[in-house]
Amino acid sequence: MSDQEALIKANQAFYQAFESLDIEKMEPIWLRDSKIVCIHPGWRKLTGWGPIMNSWERIFDAVFEMKFELRDLHLLVSGDMAVVVTEENLTQRGYEGTMRTQVLATNIYERVGSRWMMVVHHGSPVIQPADDEPPLQ
Amino acid sequence: MSDQEALIKANQAFYQAFESLDIEKMEPIWLRDSKIVCIHPGWRKLTGWGPIMNSWERIFDAVFEMKFELRDLHLLVSGDMAVVVTEENLTQRGYEGTMRTQVLATNIYERVGSRWMMVVHHGSPVIQPADDEPPLQ
Repeated sequence: MSDQEALIKANQAFYQAFESLDIEKMEPIWLRDSKIVCIHPGWRKLTGWGPIMNSWERIFDAVFEMKFELRDLHLLVSGDMAVVVTEENLTQRGYEGTMRTQVLATNIYERVGSRWMMVVHHGSPVIQPADDEPPLQ
Repeated sequence: MSDQEALIKANQAFYQAFESLDIEKMEPIWLRDSKIVCIHPGWRKLTGWGPIMNSWERIFDAVFEMKFELRDLHLLVSGDMAVVVTEENLTQRGYEGTMRTQVLATNIYERVGSRWMMVVHHGSPVIQPADDEPPLQ
């Protein structure tokens, strides 16, 4: 398996863990290290194992179902660090009904042995409508 | 100069270029490559030199002044790739007055020779108020 194939598989495993809504499936995705960073769309930055795993538990508790359709995967690999930038087309079902949103995610992985482990997840909302001019900064 | 010092300097140079509102100062910050990615807060993803430089020109044309106060720098370095996650406290002056916003940025650099060149900039708005509970995904 090439670096890129292994990376795509690691990234798929992250979204499968996300869809599982099971913290025990999310834990092995991440490097267990104080340097890890997670930014959920609109949230403040979280760092370190405890706060990040706690955030996943809160998200998993609050929804019944999450489905991701990934589009436009963009990979950068350099040695033992790699980046996947992707568009998440997300359908979530929760207490307030079904919502469809579009999120842009930058996922960063570090290779430990033969595995790509997540070290950064940065998700952010797309505010700009599909065919409009981009808004200013 | 250590890896980390050089990386902090490269990241400062990015924000100095941003504040200069001068495309000729922004161009040498980035790796001139089709793989580069830029996500401005709320915008769609831009890839490649032309679209990204064009976006900076549009931003620079639309504001009179931008001032960044960076807080909470978080560095990850692995070989020739490095990540800076930071909180941008941004004051911008434009046609519609002065605005203060908080943005979270993931900046990714690749080392080329002795220089750290930007390959990914992902900026996203912080929606959550300072002392509130984080909103759900």
